[in-house]
Amino acid sequence: MTMDVTFLGTGSAYPSPHRGASALVLRTEGECWLFDCGEGTQTQLMKSQLRAGRITKVFISHLHGDHLFGLPGLLCTVSLNSNPDPQQRLGRVDIYGPRGLRHFLRVTLGLTGSQLLFPYAGKRALSPNTDVHELEPTSDQSPEEGQLSPEVTADGPLHPQEQPGRTISLDVSSECYLLFEDKRFVVQAFRLFHRIPSFGFCVQEHDRPGRLKTELLKELGLKPGPLYGRLKAGEAVTLESGRLVLPAEVLEDATPGRKVCILGDCSSVLGEGPLRLCHRADILVHEATLANEHREKAVEHGHSTPEMAAAVAQACRARRLVLHHFSQRYKPCGAQKEGGKDDVSELKRQAEDALQDSGVEVVLAEDFLTLNVPIRCDQSLPVR
Amino acid sequence: MTMDVTFLGTGSAYPSPHRGASALVLRTEGECWLFDCGEGTQTQLMKSQLRAGRITKVFISHLHGDHLFGLPGLLCTVSLNSNPDPQQRLGRVDIYGPRGLRHFLRVTLGLTGSQLLFPYAGKRALSPNTDVHELEPTSDQSPEEGQLSPEVTADGPLHPQEQPGRTISLDVSSECYLLFEDKRFVVQAFRLFHRIPSFGFCVQEHDRPGRLKTELLKELGLKPGPLYGRLKAGEAVTLESGRLVLPAEVLEDATPGRKVCILGDCSSVLGEGPLRLCHRADILVHEATLANEHREKAVEHGHSTPEMAAAVAQACRARRLVLHHFSQRYKPCGAQKEGGKDDVSELKRQAEDALQDSGVEVVLAEDFLTLNVPIRCDQSLPVR
Ligand SMILES: [Zn+2]
Ligand SMILES: [Zn+2]
Ligand SMILES: [Zn+2]
Ligand SMILES: [Zn+2]
Repeated sequence: MTMDVTFLGTGSAYPSPHRGASALVLRTEGECWLFDCGEGTQTQLMKSQLRAGRITKVFISHLHGDHLFGLPGLLCTVSLNSNPDPQQRLGRVDIYGPRGLRHFLRVTLGLTGSQLLFPYAGKRALSPNTDVHELEPTSDQSPEEGQLSPEVTADGPLHPQEQPGRTISLDVSSECYLLFEDKRFVVQAFRLFHRIPSFGFCVQEHDRPGRLKTELLKELGLKPGPLYGRLKAGEAVTLESGRLVLPAEVLEDATPGRKVCILGDCSSVLGEGPLRLCHRADILVHEATLANEHREKAVEHGHSTPEMAAAVAQACRARRLVLHHFSQRYKPCGAQKEGGKDDVSELKRQAEDALQDSGVEVVLAEDFLTLNVPIRCDQSLPVR
Repeated sequence: MTMDVTFLGTGSAYPSPHRGASALVLRTEGECWLFDCGEGTQTQLMKSQLRAGRITKVFISHLHGDHLFGLPGLLCTVSLNSNPDPQQRLGRVDIYGPRGLRHFLRVTLGLTGSQLLFPYAGKRALSPNTDVHELEPTSDQSPEEGQLSPEVTADGPLHPQEQPGRTISLDVSSECYLLFEDKRFVVQAFRLFHRIPSFGFCVQEHDRPGRLKTELLKELGLKPGPLYGRLKAGEAVTLESGRLVLPAEVLEDATPGRKVCILGDCSSVLGEGPLRLCHRADILVHEATLANEHREKAVEHGHSTPEMAAAVAQACRARRLVLHHFSQRYKPCGAQKEGGKDDVSELKRQAEDALQDSGVEVVLAEDFLTLNVPIRCDQSLPVR
């Protein structure tokens, strides 16, 4: 079961010919989840190996334009290129993001007559259902002027085919937002501090039970059948002889689920809960807008330096820290003048310096870089 | 006085790696006027020789996303990169477009906290003033479902620093909208038929009076001074001898002003007034989304074929017809497979066939093509 992350845009503030605006895709079994969608993301997708039509979920970390302005166009294009046969295409796109996102989409799609996406009555079968789930921010996530007044996001009349949507509130005890849980994943969000409310996302794959030790089962006199399934599901089973067979006896070690954490723009993470949530993340994606020597300016704008990103990775004991969201002053390695200032590889060195002996690997993201997230064999879990 | 037109995006429906979404720039004396602003326009601008910071006016033909989704990001980036010294930069961007545009910008800029553009009190000096002038469409410009209900565009509370804006109504006698007139230009708009209300724009340079025949003036005993200025301004002058000197006697022929007409998406032009307005245009930019053989589909979607574009050019007696807004199926000549179908040069041939012997030159636009608009020497005007 492969799982990988592809960066579509690694620049901050705006897209440039050197770096797209923020967007990355987490892919698993052909399904694509898009994290942020700056202007030009649909074009970056076309240039990549990924297919926009495979996007089933979109996560928007915060409402700054460099993370959002590509979303209306992307949805229109997915809709336009979707198979007219409803059997042949993904029927639904779920969108998660801060309060205000629903209003943004309603107005941008509504005023532009984007009727394929939220079609008029009678055309529903032609359109994917789009449901927008909004995260309710708290007042400590940004300076006061960065908070949206309730009037600005007040629910006006829904678009005729708009789904009513859902508001997700902070779970105070875990300091997280539960977005959804299904057979394979649980996805949560958490609060970051930025100029406007910003969020991080944690995608946690469930652990997978180990394989049955079939030789041993045969020795015990158990033949393939329903009892196998019950043991695999973690249930104890009593043989005809009266012998109790515990799952731990007959199952190989479980495979630990993978964990990918993707943080939006921030100068800090709010609370300890998110650090526990991201503990031992296989990949922690964190912004590093400016180099350490510009820390004051970075913080003033709600951003981080490599050193600050490294501190978060260390607090989580992440396995790999991936830096992105670079100021457009840092050209990609290929486009960089030899020996020039504002060398992006200096950002990597600064994070590595801060992580000496911690065992955290540092990676610099670039547009179209794909990182595989391998299943971990090094650290198998005890059977439950 | 040079004047040129640069195409930044010539594709329809959405931007692709082969063709950007709709946008072109009319440049005159270092000032740039942007016509339409599809997603990715700011990146196309960066790739071109043009500078986004020179944009003083934006004209949006209609609210479809492929003509509009790049505008919020472009304004943010212009604002972000503008010189903090108000003396050093352009102080104002005027935006013209259909009803609904003001609401679109208010919501997209407001929700994304784009405070540099419409800054909070006290920061006004840092920001360009942006004024949105809306064109009031008429009900015959689109099918009923393409018309915005008044509630959708109702004026909510203005953003704290938003300019109140202006609504421009159709002048019924000329069948045009007067956008503005200044020393050099008069700019008008007119109605097109499309799926949603769409407009064309006519930029008319004023005629320039000819030079003074100084030899002749000397013979008449007139020395350089204020009387020269009055003659040049078209005023008759009486000499001490009592002799009346008419401007026509002492002025070379006037230089006719140039005319550039840029039409938004359409399957037809509404009324005769626009054809009179565009008479003898130096450049007429018209969409040609699909080839002649797809006429039915083109019209169904409110679009034109080369033959339809040619008919408009012929009705106006335009000098040059420039085709753009090609379906993404038509790859640029360079990216086109030899002998493949959907050859874009076929669109040119179809327009030329329709314009045989009419003297109208046909040009295929491509991304980054620049067309010079020369001063016409072939047909000088009689002196007024
Ligand atoms: Zn950002
Ligand atoms: Zn941000
Ligand atoms: Zn269009
Ligand atoms: Zn259109």
